[in-house]
Amino acid sequence: MGLVLLNRFSDCISFLDTTLRDGEQTPGVSLVPENKLRIAQRLDELGVNIIEAGFAAVSAGEFEAVRLIAGQGLRAEVASAGRSTVGDVDAVVKSGAQTMSMIIPTSDLHICEKLHKTRDQVLKITEDCVSYAKAHGLRVDLLAEDATRSDFEYLVKVFEVAVSCGVDRVTPCDTVGILSPDRAYAFFEKLTSRLEVPVGVHCHNEFGMAVANTVAALGAGAQVAHGTINGLGERAGNAAIEEVVVALCALYKQPLSIKTELLYSTSQLVSRLTGVYAQPNKAIVGENAFKHESGIHTQGMLSNPLTYEPFSPELVGRTRRISQGKHSGSHAIKADLDSMGISPSEAQLQEIFLRVKQLGDKGKTVLDADVLAIAENVMDLGGVKPIELQYMAFSGGVNVAAQASVRLCVNGKVVCGIADGVGPVDAAINAVKNAIKETEPIILEQYNVKAITGGTDAMVEVVVNMRKGLRVVTAMGVREDIVKASMDAVISGMNVLTTDYRSNGK
Amino acid sequence: MGLVLLNRFSDCISFLDTTLRDGEQTPGVSLVPENKLRIAQRLDELGVNIIEAGFAAVSAGEFEAVRLIAGQGLRAEVASAGRSTVGDVDAVVKSGAQTMSMIIPTSDLHICEKLHKTRDQVLKITEDCVSYAKAHGLRVDLLAEDATRSDFEYLVKVFEVAVSCGVDRVTPCDTVGILSPDRAYAFFEKLTSRLEVPVGVHCHNEFGMAVANTVAALGAGAQVAHGTINGLGERAGNAAIEEVVVALCALYKQPLSIKTELLYSTSQLVSRLTGVYAQPNKAIVGENAFKHESGIHTQGMLSNPLTYEPFSPELVGRTRRISQGKHSGSHAIKADLDSMGISPSEAQLQEIFLRVKQLGDKGKTVLDADVLAIAENVMDLGGVKPIELQYMAFSGGVNVAAQASVRLCVNGKVVCGIADGVGPVDAAINAVKNAIKETEPIILEQYNVKAITGGTDAMVEVVVNMRKGLRVVTAMGVREDIVKASMDAVISGMNVLTTDYRSNGK
Repeated sequence: MGLVLLNRFSDCISFLDTTLRDGEQTPGVSLVPENKLRIAQRLDELGVNIIEAGFAAVSAGEFEAVRLIAGQGLRAEVASAGRSTVGDVDAVVKSGAQTMSMIIPTSDLHICEKLHKTRDQVLKITEDCVSYAKAHGLRVDLLAEDATRSDFEYLVKVFEVAVSCGVDRVTPCDTVGILSPDRAYAFFEKLTSRLEVPVGVHCHNEFGMAVANTVAALGAGAQVAHGTINGLGERAGNAAIEEVVVALCALYKQPLSIKTELLYSTSQLVSRLTGVYAQPNKAIVGENAFKHESGIHTQGMLSNPLTYEPFSPELVGRTRRISQGKHSGSHAIKADLDSMGISPSEAQLQEIFLRVKQLGDKGKTVLDADVLAIAENVMDLGGVKPIELQYMAFSGGVNVAAQASVRLCVNGKVVCGIADGVGPVDAAINAVKNAIKETEPIILEQYNVKAITGGTDAMVEVVVNMRKGLRVVTAMGVREDIVKASMDAVISGMNVLTTDYRSNGK
Repeated sequence: MGLVLLNRFSDCISFLDTTLRDGEQTPGVSLVPENKLRIAQRLDELGVNIIEAGFAAVSAGEFEAVRLIAGQGLRAEVASAGRSTVGDVDAVVKSGAQTMSMIIPTSDLHICEKLHKTRDQVLKITEDCVSYAKAHGLRVDLLAEDATRSDFEYLVKVFEVAVSCGVDRVTPCDTVGILSPDRAYAFFEKLTSRLEVPVGVHCHNEFGMAVANTVAALGAGAQVAHGTINGLGERAGNAAIEEVVVALCALYKQPLSIKTELLYSTSQLVSRLTGVYAQPNKAIVGENAFKHESGIHTQGMLSNPLTYEPFSPELVGRTRRISQGKHSGSHAIKADLDSMGISPSEAQLQEIFLRVKQLGDKGKTVLDADVLAIAENVMDLGGVKPIELQYMAFSGGVNVAAQASVRLCVNGKVVCGIADGVGPVDAAINAVKNAIKETEPIILEQYNVKAITGGTDAMVEVVVNMRKGLRVVTAMGVREDIVKASMDAVISGMNVLTTDYRSNGK
């Protein structure tokens, strides 16, 4: 016997987003109420059905956040988590949330070691609290904590007691992420066949299988998928809601209420406000998810994107990118040069191709600026950099503004700039902007520093996105000094942007 | 019908690590041969069975890396990837790799749009190349590209041709990650029943299910799991090998050759050398994977770690950490204060607890330094900071060394320091070290800057780990100026370390 195809999807799958509750329990993450509200509004636009806004009883700020969000008249149902105590129910009622995600531990481990209670006492607490919450007008979703390590018959008993007290939904939580898809399917198939109320699924990601487990549970009849944007959450996080959504859409063709094209911008908002960024190779929302480098891949991509994409990036609000490196094929490099108005001969292209690979072999990321420099050299296009840094000095300290001065040579003409800033990097970049503002309408769109790990003398990698008109380039500077790395990146980007061989017919 | 439990695991599951080939195809990642060798040696220690060291034909540097690794006499089998061409086979033979991962596309999409060939031509190429490689003494693993979108009977035919030419293993690749565990199981159950050679599984992660798909395939009889450390790889990456390993060990009790306690250090090495860091909430190797904040959680943790851990962090070479924030329970705060020799009364503890929550509510990460400051204030322990920054100035530029001077007040005594450095941050920290070196034997163990995204005036978050004797603390500085943020972090950490109420009996 083996796993066979999922076929018991409900007609009305809904999504509970717990970014603002379980997601916010990520160590180091703490959102002020106004930022929680911004995320809630975005989740509402995205089309999630239930927004778990926080844990009303946990602190004054949390209470305020739930109250603020519940009072917005959002389309989505607003829920607050709470323990199974009268005090927590009262806090949820007072917050104005429509729904309480009422947490009750059901495994013997949690009942004994955490609550110091017995199974019978937990049944009684469930009965009392669900009844109390229902009597106070709340919709109640009973979240059985550590359900997947609980005695199954006891778990069903807890849920049956809750149902008899009028609970609206029940959700067994895979609190420490021990399910695998086969077990998730078996568990939810058995559970949904025993209960008359909708069953939710709440998976954690200790083994990297939270998304697959959630999909398997839905395929076995669960109706409400819990998850967080970017898979945020304590420890290894929760099921990433964007992955569950896209898997259901693209792999199982399930009709959903989610506006998938808002997934990426929602992910970006959550990253910015929480300070927790997805790794580049994260599915759907990672920086590289739709970026292609290697040669055999990009050749296929250029002829038909489906060769290396299971769905179009536009589905989730993104676009495709092709980058160069030692795996690059000549097709990709040619496409890149075309965009700069450079048309090498076949022999020249082969030489450029070879040198790009050599650069990649040295362990270097190959950027637009590098491809341009190589092409200029190979094709003898002049290669004089339009903008050159001749001099830079900066200073700063406590209780004085940071300041910087620069001297640049722009197309042979010397220009100077001086500026202050919030720190030496800001001052130096401002000084460059002041120096060139007359001659080159270039905009610094984004400034990024890769995480620096190690010591204060570690290499710093600065990446900038710069724009001139409609053209955007990425450039980089790598130095031990963040100020110098920033200058290198900005001037390198400017040089690519001020070079366009289309305009002078070279 | 539904998914039933996986039960066809082979007795001899082995692991092929492709961090150095598919992992290195991550855009922006490029490893020089020496760094590839360092990773290969670590993978060998870790116990992976096959190391795919690179793509010998792709560039001179890649060839050199494969040659270098193949010549080390590692315990693991060393493989090189290559296309199905005579030239690529020759390159692999010349590199000294024992095995070729021979790539052949099998989906009509790839055959037509990328290769511009017919199915019959691909069968002929397979026959020719496998025979040629076998005649040249290579072990051959045939990697069918886009196998999961191929006509199944055609795929089997390609594999049968390869088997008739003496292929050693065959591996259908889920190139664009469209499998789900149910489909993976069905696919591999059918495929393994048709073939006499070992079958590998190679999954990509477009929908976040690569790990679950790999486990399902192994449960259906596949024998060789392909994966990468940290799930590195193009786009959304490959199956994270550490997650597959731990899932098999901890959830399915499969005996494996992997030394799991080396997983974390291997992950760290790969992050450092590739510059691609796992997100904090990544399973097994993420910074937060064994970190606990919320109150209800830490209370359980302190009584029995298993309440919120599916396995002990030591299994993968890590340790547990507890952090404070607005979800903190008073139990966790008490444990934290104990370690600083501070014993508050019950009333004091409640007040400290309340203020920690208030701080968390303001959106701030609560660090050791914050808990100490609050406790000192509540318990009236003095609260005079042993070390205070009175003055700091720095300067730098092009062609001059960065320099900085500081004046500190250390336990009432004024000390000064001046130093140069690779940049203003390094100079400022060196100046502090010089100023205090006589009085306080404190070591800056790690200096980290969180990725800065946005503009040059964005907030910079500096986190430092500092040590005095056996005690290690984490401290943070957040400013727009990276130099000032670094100073704040270092001085805050020093102040926690120089405060120990155990020594003076307060």
